[in-house]
Amino acid sequence: MGAPCCMSKFATLSNIRSRPFSSILPSHPFPSTTAINFSLASSFSSSATFSFTWDDVICVSESQTDTQDRSRYLQGFFNKVQLCNRASEKQSEFLPFVVEDHIVGFIHNGFVKHLRGFGDVFVFPKDKYNGGPNGDFVSLHPILKTAEERTRAVGYVVENLGEERIPGIRNELYPVTSSFGAPIFFSLERAAAPYFGIKAYGVHMNGYVEADGQKHLWVGKRSDTKQTYPGMLDHLVAGGLPHGIDCKENLIKECEEEAGIPRSISVKAIPVGAVSYMDIDEYRYKRDVLFCYDLKLPKDFIPNNEDGEVDSFKLIPIRQVAEVIRKTEFFKTNCSLVIIDFLFRHGYITPEYHGYLDLLRSLRIGEYS
Amino acid sequence: MGAPCCMSKFATLSNIRSRPFSSILPSHPFPSTTAINFSLASSFSSSATFSFTWDDVICVSESQTDTQDRSRYLQGFFNKVQLCNRASEKQSEFLPFVVEDHIVGFIHNGFVKHLRGFGDVFVFPKDKYNGGPNGDFVSLHPILKTAEERTRAVGYVVENLGEERIPGIRNELYPVTSSFGAPIFFSLERAAAPYFGIKAYGVHMNGYVEADGQKHLWVGKRSDTKQTYPGMLDHLVAGGLPHGIDCKENLIKECEEEAGIPRSISVKAIPVGAVSYMDIDEYRYKRDVLFCYDLKLPKDFIPNNEDGEVDSFKLIPIRQVAEVIRKTEFFKTNCSLVIIDFLFRHGYITPEYHGYLDLLRSLRIGEYS
Repeated sequence: MGAPCCMSKFATLSNIRSRPFSSILPSHPFPSTTAINFSLASSFSSSATFSFTWDDVICVSESQTDTQDRSRYLQGFFNKVQLCNRASEKQSEFLPFVVEDHIVGFIHNGFVKHLRGFGDVFVFPKDKYNGGPNGDFVSLHPILKTAEERTRAVGYVVENLGEERIPGIRNELYPVTSSFGAPIFFSLERAAAPYFGIKAYGVHMNGYVEADGQKHLWVGKRSDTKQTYPGMLDHLVAGGLPHGIDCKENLIKECEEEAGIPRSISVKAIPVGAVSYMDIDEYRYKRDVLFCYDLKLPKDFIPNNEDGEVDSFKLIPIRQVAEVIRKTEFFKTNCSLVIIDFLFRHGYITPEYHGYLDLLRSLRIGEYS
Repeated sequence: MGAPCCMSKFATLSNIRSRPFSSILPSHPFPSTTAINFSLASSFSSSATFSFTWDDVICVSESQTDTQDRSRYLQGFFNKVQLCNRASEKQSEFLPFVVEDHIVGFIHNGFVKHLRGFGDVFVFPKDKYNGGPNGDFVSLHPILKTAEERTRAVGYVVENLGEERIPGIRNELYPVTSSFGAPIFFSLERAAAPYFGIKAYGVHMNGYVEADGQKHLWVGKRSDTKQTYPGMLDHLVAGGLPHGIDCKENLIKECEEEAGIPRSISVKAIPVGAVSYMDIDEYRYKRDVLFCYDLKLPKDFIPNNEDGEVDSFKLIPIRQVAEVIRKTEFFKTNCSLVIIDFLFRHGYITPEYHGYLDLLRSLRIGEYS
């Protein structure tokens, strides 16, 4: 078949990313393959080195694919999962961050240097309080006993390090815990979470419509002025889980703000599981768990963004969304995991495709707890 | 609340199994907890030391539960997952079984002794061909080069060991591979699979009906004369994946044989993912992966078993099925995993319950590849 114009426009990107399938399908695919250099993807995702339009999206989504090629069809999905799970071999460059004898995060050796000026907040290896037979770690100064004291003290550090060290400060607090639902040791600025390698939780919702026996997914395009992933494709509704609100209530709130979905509809969203990933990018260590929701929307529903973070929405047949994921990096990286999970649960990816179990496993590479 | 009569009838079983929730929810729940002795469950499952009727099932299913107790509600599910994942600490009692440099299984030291009489079929540690810097293992004699030769030779051994060593011979062959979809090294009698610790794959189907806005699951009760798990509750359709047939075709075949579901309906079954477990019971090491399917059936459909393996079927509201799983061991153990997965995907288990992520993770404890 001839490649349509939109495909050649993005061909360079696709070709660079294309790797032999055999390298992606060992029994445990990721320990070896995440070593591959994804710097291009990284710069693309975070700073929008090129932009695309809805026309580009639709063009790619309609380009032909041999879904009968069972041995290679899943490769494009694997590549997108890998974009969320980079550089696991660099875990050794991070020190555990321990609070009350629990590992709550991981901090890069290089970032630890920036923290050394704050000896009344952190305790470091070789300090009198830390280190020992179990190895080195960073912890909070024992003088900080309550969650409030810790939140204030670490907040002070984050503020002092400033945009240069921790870009994108949002003034939004994330809870610091050892696992979901466990006691909260303190709260931390959202933008700082990956620098301390703390676990972050989010909610992502597949908003879909059933028409003519086919499922169609509502897809958002992020505002070009958004700080992170500007102009990229996104879920209809997704957001981080801040301190003090449960998943369902957070989702209902985000439904209202991000897509104008009234509570009377959003309460029908169904929790369907979770995906997880573990991504290392220089000093940042993301350990994210995304709670996934499906919401079947009325056919006549039209989303309406109320917080200015979304440029526009489009309803796209799910098989075409699958093609966009396989063939491009238009989607914000972690959305791919949630949509691939949707494709599994709704029968669009079947056991007859080579790599079925490996791909399914790869959706939960990160520790999910 | 007062316990209804059916609950007191099975109370002993429930109480013995009840353990503090805290012991089930460490970050990685199973390494420590599978050490608990499940011999009662084991003898119960395989030899039906007590029997129950549909009246018992319905009575338990309708007994009240405080679903608002978010901290403890999931415990009954955890216990059922553990019944499929016993004795992981005994892995060290097994030797890898290697074919063509791939680990295809694990054989217990005690069972290896029974194989030592067959030196023209197996090669053992300390034999001239085996052992070395990477540790000991059992392999096939290098004279056996083709799949046919290996199948015949190992089949001869299984036949000679007889019912005493390998009970329940079915004359049904399972493929021996290193992972799903990988080349098949030879085929092995189904009943012998756990004695060689080879991976076994199966298909399990949740056949459900939607009525009055509620989902209802068709549940089968196995014949009292069935060799394995007699009289226990089962999926509407489930079966092992034998050599030479893909998942979908196998499911369609089983739909016809086990529940009289015509192909025109069964082709609509949706593959929705997979669960896995890893169970050690004396010489047997089960490493199973179950491909899960959902089939929404017409309201007026009545299943009809055609192979005599099912005693009867009943359509039960899914919330009541959940109670049966939580409170009893009426279900064939591995069905619980697939039904708990259904409860996750259809929103009956929500992130607000304590242990959500741990339970989700526990459904795929076994290596799924």
